[in-house]
Amino acid sequence: MYEYAIGVDLGGTNLRAAAIDSDGQMIDRVSAGVQYSAGRDVIIAEIVTAIRAVRDTVGANGLRGVGIGIPGYIQLETGVVMGTANLPGFEGFPVRDEIQRLLGTPIVLENDANAAALGEKWIGAGRGVNELVLLTLGTGIGGGIIVGGRVLHGYLGMAGELGHMTVFPDGNPCGCGNCGCLEKHASATALVGMARMLHLGDGVTAEDIYKLAMGGNTRALQCFKSMGRALGIALANLINIFNFPLYLLSGGVLPAWDLFAPIMFDEVKSRSFTYSRTNPRIERGILGKEAGLFGAAYLPFQHGYSFQDTAAG
Amino acid sequence: MYEYAIGVDLGGTNLRAAAIDSDGQMIDRVSAGVQYSAGRDVIIAEIVTAIRAVRDTVGANGLRGVGIGIPGYIQLETGVVMGTANLPGFEGFPVRDEIQRLLGTPIVLENDANAAALGEKWIGAGRGVNELVLLTLGTGIGGGIIVGGRVLHGYLGMAGELGHMTVFPDGNPCGCGNCGCLEKHASATALVGMARMLHLGDGVTAEDIYKLAMGGNTRALQCFKSMGRALGIALANLINIFNFPLYLLSGGVLPAWDLFAPIMFDEVKSRSFTYSRTNPRIERGILGKEAGLFGAAYLPFQHGYSFQDTAAG
Repeated sequence: MYEYAIGVDLGGTNLRAAAIDSDGQMIDRVSAGVQYSAGRDVIIAEIVTAIRAVRDTVGANGLRGVGIGIPGYIQLETGVVMGTANLPGFEGFPVRDEIQRLLGTPIVLENDANAAALGEKWIGAGRGVNELVLLTLGTGIGGGIIVGGRVLHGYLGMAGELGHMTVFPDGNPCGCGNCGCLEKHASATALVGMARMLHLGDGVTAEDIYKLAMGGNTRALQCFKSMGRALGIALANLINIFNFPLYLLSGGVLPAWDLFAPIMFDEVKSRSFTYSRTNPRIERGILGKEAGLFGAAYLPFQHGYSFQDTAAG
Repeated sequence: MYEYAIGVDLGGTNLRAAAIDSDGQMIDRVSAGVQYSAGRDVIIAEIVTAIRAVRDTVGANGLRGVGIGIPGYIQLETGVVMGTANLPGFEGFPVRDEIQRLLGTPIVLENDANAAALGEKWIGAGRGVNELVLLTLGTGIGGGIIVGGRVLHGYLGMAGELGHMTVFPDGNPCGCGNCGCLEKHASATALVGMARMLHLGDGVTAEDIYKLAMGGNTRALQCFKSMGRALGIALANLINIFNFPLYLLSGGVLPAWDLFAPIMFDEVKSRSFTYSRTNPRIERGILGKEAGLFGAAYLPFQHGYSFQDTAAG
């Protein structure tokens, strides 16, 4: 029987839903704005509406299930979401069961960075390997770890908080309570902070810094070098810990690869003898923003859920 | 049928072999000195002699296989050992096949720290959990990671090099080429190095420093505080990465727990919000030096090897 799944990616300002078949072919997609300020019920209604739209187009027959990538930690057994500062009313709420009830379709929730890692593994740069680490470099830094072809969750769904690895023990303060977190030294936000310290302008954005650096501005280049150093320290640690064949970077800061990657590789080489001995790949993800959408759609296939197991709604 | 396995632990100056049944009961054991300077063939002959002695006592009937913990990286498919500076002639040699040929018994090789982690998981402090990290604090620092009840190997058997995580990017130089490796800030060797810097005496040992600290010597206490800080940084990273329920410390430096652990816990609390949220256990291993022996014996049970599969020799 022809089978497909629906993947949903909940972004900062909009949501996307796509029907993807078991070979990774995208059959249909919708995207819609999300009124995050309107609260939980409205957000959930918007998610359900997008999923219904795709399901109505492709047909309920053959729908294996729905995977949803969410910025937060998913308590796997209960389907409760935690650590969702940007999703009002989601904290501690049984999001999975509620959406499942409204749709009558099995739902699998996953952290958005984990979903992106799974997407790259399924149909992206990680095709052909079963173990990889993904770092998503955006306003913050997320992480996803794939072991044996599946997301490593840890016992409460919080594994892969790679943006909060300490790279400089006395580094920049982080909202998590730590100092020197990777994401305070290598995210878009970190770049802007460094640029401010270097008096590159008050309203300067990460893209402005990129353009300045491409134009040869020394201080802007310094920001990317500092970022590369922090990433190199983090990657060297991950390589020493995991000895995986593949480490991927993705996210909004990726276009600046040529500015930070040389320093990053220098740092990895000098800090990880496992890198020198085993020569793992450190590469850019190839799915871009679609990674999370594909990964979310892959979840129902992995979990072996079947639409027929539950009542249709 | 009654089944047992033989575990072998290759230590710095001696080797131990033990017959252990599938319930983790030790039935018989031998230990012997090893003439490491005599070269590979002599070392292998000594290993084989110890295993034969145990097998002859307990009987070849019911022997499921032999697991051997070795300081080095094991290439799983070939059974070749790498990174064995202390084992002359072992580098790149097919140790597994050679011992298997001499004994006619299936052999499973494993890195010694990985074997210790598996031992604690099977019959020690990790009984009841399927995911844990072990740090062995000795002259160096080794690591073992258990995921889904099994050793995490990575693609070339080098996963778990936790002693070479960078904790201070500009810290003490390490033979691996890096600066600020955990083992240069938290091992017995690191303690001695710090004591030398603090003029605590030329020939001072880690045990001397321990005794001085217990007697109230401020500089000796400082060494353990510095060690605790480095361990805390490393553990906070591991907790953020894995979200496992259990992190274990073992090894020769463990008696000094009360001297370094308070600082270690302070550091973990301030650096890992995953720690605060999920409250994982950070504890001492309970098997001491036996952990590696038990873990090695557990390997043949896990791998499902059967003595009957190969010709007896």
